[in-house]
Amino acid sequence: MHILVINSGSSSLKYQLFAMPSDQPLCVGQVERIGLDGSFVRHQVTGADRLERTEPIADHAVGLQRVLELLSDPVSGVISSPDVIEAIGHRVVHGGESFASATRITPAVKETIKALFPLAPLHNPINYLCIEIAETTFPRATQIAVFDTAFHQTMPEYAFRYAIPEALYRQEGIRVYGFHGTSHRYVSKKAAAWLNKPDAKLISIHLGNGSSITAVRAGQSVDTSMGFSPLAGLVMGTRSGDIDPAVIFHLISRGYSPDDVNRLLNKQSGMQGLTGFSDMRDIRKAMEAGDQAATLAYELYAYRVRKYIGAYAAILNGLDALIFTAGIGENDATMRAMICNELAFLNIYLDPDKNTTSSRQIRDISATDSPVKILVVPTNEELEIAQQSYELLQST
Amino acid sequence: MHILVINSGSSSLKYQLFAMPSDQPLCVGQVERIGLDGSFVRHQVTGADRLERTEPIADHAVGLQRVLELLSDPVSGVISSPDVIEAIGHRVVHGGESFASATRITPAVKETIKALFPLAPLHNPINYLCIEIAETTFPRATQIAVFDTAFHQTMPEYAFRYAIPEALYRQEGIRVYGFHGTSHRYVSKKAAAWLNKPDAKLISIHLGNGSSITAVRAGQSVDTSMGFSPLAGLVMGTRSGDIDPAVIFHLISRGYSPDDVNRLLNKQSGMQGLTGFSDMRDIRKAMEAGDQAATLAYELYAYRVRKYIGAYAAILNGLDALIFTAGIGENDATMRAMICNELAFLNIYLDPDKNTTSSRQIRDISATDSPVKILVVPTNEELEIAQQSYELLQST
Ligand SMILES: Nc1ncnc2c1ncn2[C@@H]1O[C@H](COP(=O)(O)OP(=O)(O)O)[C@@H](O)[C@H]1O
Ligand SMILES: Nc1ncnc2c1ncn2[C@@H]1O[C@H](COP(=O)(O)OP(=O)(O)O)[C@@H](O)[C@H]1O
Repeated sequence: MHILVINSGSSSLKYQLFAMPSDQPLCVGQVERIGLDGSFVRHQVTGADRLERTEPIADHAVGLQRVLELLSDPVSGVISSPDVIEAIGHRVVHGGESFASATRITPAVKETIKALFPLAPLHNPINYLCIEIAETTFPRATQIAVFDTAFHQTMPEYAFRYAIPEALYRQEGIRVYGFHGTSHRYVSKKAAAWLNKPDAKLISIHLGNGSSITAVRAGQSVDTSMGFSPLAGLVMGTRSGDIDPAVIFHLISRGYSPDDVNRLLNKQSGMQGLTGFSDMRDIRKAMEAGDQAATLAYELYAYRVRKYIGAYAAILNGLDALIFTAGIGENDATMRAMICNELAFLNIYLDPDKNTTSSRQIRDISATDSPVKILVVPTNEELEIAQQSYELLQST
Repeated sequence: MHILVINSGSSSLKYQLFAMPSDQPLCVGQVERIGLDGSFVRHQVTGADRLERTEPIADHAVGLQRVLELLSDPVSGVISSPDVIEAIGHRVVHGGESFASATRITPAVKETIKALFPLAPLHNPINYLCIEIAETTFPRATQIAVFDTAFHQTMPEYAFRYAIPEALYRQEGIRVYGFHGTSHRYVSKKAAAWLNKPDAKLISIHLGNGSSITAVRAGQSVDTSMGFSPLAGLVMGTRSGDIDPAVIFHLISRGYSPDDVNRLLNKQSGMQGLTGFSDMRDIRKAMEAGDQAATLAYELYAYRVRKYIGAYAAILNGLDALIFTAGIGENDATMRAMICNELAFLNIYLDPDKNTTSSRQIRDISATDSPVKILVVPTNEELEIAQQSYELLQST
């Protein structure tokens, strides 16, 4: 069975085709700069050369049509007709309190995704649009939504509520939702299987352009660092993460508009604001060249992760393993070492040699006698979406 | 030697007179509703009846003059003339990065306090005014400033900086300052002495109307939960504590003004927002009567404290004692039990019987074999200010 996974952004459309249940990726690609100058398509069939072509892509409908042509190309294609794709798994950012797992898309589900537009104004509308496009382009496929927020719906109420008037929760939906749920679910499942301990207490540390950290007990999210939006929590490439909310009012009193401050905290803060670079590789280079701002930012980044590890170890009242994942978590051994340094009180001991050995596989980088394991687990959100979609098809 | 301690608010003036170095309080009192209808004075000489009188008090200058009359009253007074007061210790809220300890007030110091008005617009101007009034009312006394922020000036830079553009720190002073420093310093000194361990790793938990938590190593603050302002960190009587900053932009997009949201998070949130009550005694009563919102708020309050305990235990990489202080910390045994529950992974074990025995003394409420001690230490910010003022006079 073929399942196509679609991850749509405001001007992009990423996709991956899987043969299930073998988890085999058949091809992967992306359409970028949709509706902008210089739009292009990148398409890679597993085991073949990558194709990249600059061409005008007016909108997401044109983009998905182009993907279909590539998939079913008589020479280089991987499918004989659109009808062999049994399901399309859509990444949808916000599922609010309505969706705790992968969901078959019906008119009612679409209405609910629409009702959540105010909570994710940049993401849900484009995800919604691409669902409608996919319904037209692949009319025989089952459309399935997999939500970034779904995994965190198991959080207890004392963890997901803010200390603000109750009406703002009941009427406006202001609470912690959490994001990156598909990634946290994927790597924590892998880790629990690796540990052979279904009820494991885990801390999943997703460090990419966006970063978040999740406390997992017996396969369920019990707390996470992103909140009502993806701005809260850890320091990120361009986002501030946690900050005293009074800073916003102070900046407004100094002449900034609310939109200025919103842009500042989302696009010009984080590592970018501290160092001028948002990519951790550039920051490491600057640090090695003696740049003090880069050194401080790197330490500050690690320090915030360390505090969350402590917080989650406390509320889990125990810890079987830390999990590092995503671009920085999987690749930046220096950062992993800085995060795990001097955590003996939490029974966390890194093995420096294992830490610097690189691999694309799940691996344990903790010292042999470390009571808490430290795992590096490559994430794969697309595969997780395909797997959840497959399971949904099997179960109904 | 007599030292008068003054703690001024926008419409109040609290004072306490100490004989030093014996730490003996001679009298304590407050002038309230200054410049408002129904202003009154409350004055209590140690060991005597409390005097309370409603009378018009037009401004802080009239208020302090009234305090002087009460102190030197021929019948009930405790001093023979203003000149026996050798020093006045002023609580000043914000010392910015300029003051890390008690400071003799000079014209230059006054200028610096003035320059910090933008960082503490509600507090520093009134503290400044009362310094000038005291200079007139007690011209022979040495005027000394003791800052709420001073104790936290030892925080490392990776802990006090926010992940925002560096210029906002350098030019606008946006960083973590922390507050309640006088209280955290007082109780952590007491605890280290009680443990007989000057380099103790401590977590000082100040739970009053305002609440904050501080990690202390060898007598120095290394991190604290309040930030640029007293809004951040733990849940408080009417303040939200930590919240995703995006909630502010969302509310503004829904029609709130920035001032509305500022008021909401400072005055209508916290326990007040969750339950309708800001006083923990009312919340406990509601909870015992079966009020579910009160139960949730109580759990949420404890949960946030627990996360900070874990975070600070991690960065201290060890822990000798937790310290509970201030109105809730000293008196609410149920809250202490909820906070310390299931923290075995951090070596924290409460003794339920010791916890419910009340006393006005420093006491250990941990289980006999608990590696981490749990101390209740009554705070006394006024005495700490008197002591710091006394030490400053002795050292110069
Ligand atoms: N070898 C490396 N060392 C350090 N950082 C890396 C390395 N490779 C990738 N990264 C970091 O990973 C980040 C992207 O992570 P990724 O998980 O791909 O992000 P996204 O959140 O967009 O999915 C980049 O910003 C880069 O800083
Ligand atoms: N016996 C008690 N049980 C629970 N809470 C108490 C008790 N006594 C006082 N409190 C709480 O202490 C709070 C005031 O603490 P306090 O330290 O005096 O505040 P402030 O921050 O104004 O100095 C009150 O709001 C009340 O909730």
